[in-house]
Amino acid sequence: MAEHTICLLVKLGQVAFRIAEDGIGGTGLRVRPTASCRPLADNAAMPQLALGAFLRIDPATMVTSLDDLERAGYAERTRDPQDRRRYAVDITDDGRKILADLNRTLAGLDSEILADLGATERHSLHALLGSLAESPALTAMFDAVREQNSAKRA
Amino acid sequence: MAEHTICLLVKLGQVAFRIAEDGIGGTGLRVRPTASCRPLADNAAMPQLALGAFLRIDPATMVTSLDDLERAGYAERTRDPQDRRRYAVDITDDGRKILADLNRTLAGLDSEILADLGATERHSLHALLGSLAESPALTAMFDAVREQNSAKRA
Repeated sequence: MAEHTICLLVKLGQVAFRIAEDGIGGTGLRVRPTASCRPLADNAAMPQLALGAFLRIDPATMVTSLDDLERAGYAERTRDPQDRRRYAVDITDDGRKILADLNRTLAGLDSEILADLGATERHSLHALLGSLAESPALTAMFDAVREQNSAKRA
Repeated sequence: MAEHTICLLVKLGQVAFRIAEDGIGGTGLRVRPTASCRPLADNAAMPQLALGAFLRIDPATMVTSLDDLERAGYAERTRDPQDRRRYAVDITDDGRKILADLNRTLAGLDSEILADLGATERHSLHALLGSLAESPALTAMFDAVREQNSAKRA
């Protein structure tokens, strides 16, 4: 199905996921929990629901990811000071350290997976993927699919 | 983790997978089984093991995918004429018809997910993803991860 861009994205996404998960193994964090860690380092504590929405992770997966991170000592849940009925999530000092390691690991993996592309191609690919990730049309489609699936489950 | 290309690939791959699976729903085929169908239409019957290797799908997943396709009447397993102990896999006429529908669906999804990119950007993205999918370095890394995982399971 290589003639469709969506199929290339699915295929390369699966390949990238397996390589990332394997490469991150050493830090003791899996890919998905780690994705939750990142915006915390950038944005400080966030309400748990806002973090899930930001990451486009469904609430159930979000809870599992945070359980993993909390058990590992990389994040902690506290009561949201804005609304005591809800949880806020914050990264710990250990979380920040592991995130720095992780950034080095991911930069190394980027060099490896893109080894056959020239510098210009790498930059173009990164910029195009970045544009696509920010695309309102794609985001709207994905949100529609997620809402449909949530509705089916409810 | 948006500054790493590998993270963009993982993220967009998951988004593309959910959108593709949702969009393909109408044809009654899931994304992974459908991926098995395609090379059969291009290459005619293939030994089951060769098909799995070609698609980089592990043997267990391959069997499940083929079971689904066979049940739906889109593929059939026969004894490999080259080696009677092994199975060959071939696509049926119904399989070819559904594949034509599927190609139209996927072309439509491409237009939708890439709606915010210009024509030049779409072509560049497609070409770059195609190069990456063919990259010997990436293929070698992925194969190494798969072999490691198979070894762990054995």
